[in-house]
Amino acid sequence: MSVTAAPEGPLGIVCGGGSIPFAVADAVARRGRKVVLFPLIGWADAAAVARYPHHWIHVGRLGRFCRLARAEGVRDIVFIGALVRPSLRQLRLDWKTVAAFPRIVRAYRGGDDHLLSGVGRIFEDEGFRLLGAHDVAPDILMPEGPLGRRVPTPRDEADIARGLAVLAALGGYDVGQAAVVADGHILALEAAEGTDRMLARIAELRRDGRVRAPEGVGVLVKAPKHAQDTRYDLPAVGPATIEGAARAGLAGVAIVAGAGVVAEPLRLGRAADEAGLFVVGVAQPGAAA
Amino acid sequence: MSVTAAPEGPLGIVCGGGSIPFAVADAVARRGRKVVLFPLIGWADAAAVARYPHHWIHVGRLGRFCRLARAEGVRDIVFIGALVRPSLRQLRLDWKTVAAFPRIVRAYRGGDDHLLSGVGRIFEDEGFRLLGAHDVAPDILMPEGPLGRRVPTPRDEADIARGLAVLAALGGYDVGQAAVVADGHILALEAAEGTDRMLARIAELRRDGRVRAPEGVGVLVKAPKHAQDTRYDLPAVGPATIEGAARAGLAGVAIVAGAGVVAEPLRLGRAADEAGLFVVGVAQPGAAA
Repeated sequence: MSVTAAPEGPLGIVCGGGSIPFAVADAVARRGRKVVLFPLIGWADAAAVARYPHHWIHVGRLGRFCRLARAEGVRDIVFIGALVRPSLRQLRLDWKTVAAFPRIVRAYRGGDDHLLSGVGRIFEDEGFRLLGAHDVAPDILMPEGPLGRRVPTPRDEADIARGLAVLAALGGYDVGQAAVVADGHILALEAAEGTDRMLARIAELRRDGRVRAPEGVGVLVKAPKHAQDTRYDLPAVGPATIEGAARAGLAGVAIVAGAGVVAEPLRLGRAADEAGLFVVGVAQPGAAA
Repeated sequence: MSVTAAPEGPLGIVCGGGSIPFAVADAVARRGRKVVLFPLIGWADAAAVARYPHHWIHVGRLGRFCRLARAEGVRDIVFIGALVRPSLRQLRLDWKTVAAFPRIVRAYRGGDDHLLSGVGRIFEDEGFRLLGAHDVAPDILMPEGPLGRRVPTPRDEADIARGLAVLAALGGYDVGQAAVVADGHILALEAAEGTDRMLARIAELRRDGRVRAPEGVGVLVKAPKHAQDTRYDLPAVGPATIEGAARAGLAGVAIVAGAGVVAEPLRLGRAADEAGLFVVGVAQPGAAA
């Protein structure tokens, strides 16, 4: 499914935190399609939101969202941005959400994929079409090859292959999308803590002498989960990832090409150069060349 | 292989940190076999060591160990206790160790299994027989069933099954032996950080609102690695594990029966009761009943 310039009404972008929602909005606007943002209260960046047509919404206000989106002529929607699993108690509920409650609770009992796709189906039943960032803004996806000047060494390549393999083994378990591998040794696997905290842990283990690989050895490997529906959740890579990888003493970052979002590839490549790291888009093992 | 009362000379116990080496020494002594401890300088507990015949050794002094062990008539040896991957620079090397160096370096490049079995083979080439704690002291292994009064609920049972499954999926990767699963959601996977730090992370994620499962939901699941040679590394469970699980707000701890070492089962059961947790030995999936 590739939705390009053919305008089918404005695109609704439900925005979580971080800069990626705005990168998507800009990329869609460049392609000539109007966007309407639905920033989530408590998550989206208010200063950035102000540059676009928008309606603030609470996470739990499904009825309000449906009303506003229909009034704007929005049928296609994209969910994007950081959204730490909100507490059920934190949600401000409206009646439509309450009606959908049994399904949301079921979705909550599984992992993140479950949650996202369960909530996604509720929107589809309301007549919306859920698209992925890669459908509406393919130019913000991680390309294959290095973004900066540095490239992986053969040792880094071996670490990348091992990281992709272990993430593939975890694919059926709706668990993290990232691993740190140093000289063949798997140092960390991401689960509920997220990539930034996993990288902070490596930095800490290194300080405490529990990582034996020297500084400059080791790779952060990010891949989409097997079961992952890329309409809901693509791994994002930004300057914070580079900073975290640098503090963790890694050689670089490898992301499966096309399966990660990079808001500003040029800037990211420069940040990697400055930090002395590589950032490289790699093919998923088993994917057609 | 089960070596019981038949004395074949004293058993040499190469001791890392923690109380488990002494539990093994006591269990072996109860069976009527003499023990000689080879406590590792920097790791083993000096006060406890003093109660046994012993020779302190440096991690890198293979020649000294071989000489002392032969002088004591030791042929069978057990490696046991915590030993954080020592830095190559920290090792005090002797000539025999230097001769074995290319093999040790190769072992270092893999994961922990690799390291332990690689080093183990060097001892075998010197004419020693490496035994596991379960060979010489089967009574310190985790039994099947609960150790304290509490037992897992059906929800806990489902979390345990999911934990065992994800650890089995990771078995080929020489990575951690533990996971935390809460209400079907995999919250953490252990790698280089070890079980205690993984549990501390769950406590932190809970404080920060990033774990949605309420207090008292979630299980620490420990299993042997697939590739693990149990002569070198059995997961150990002690009071610190119970305390960490309690601080992480978990319902309990599940360990694959026979594949974990429990120094003092009665004391551990009491500690679990006091903390309001269960500790249970479970069958490995796919193992014969």
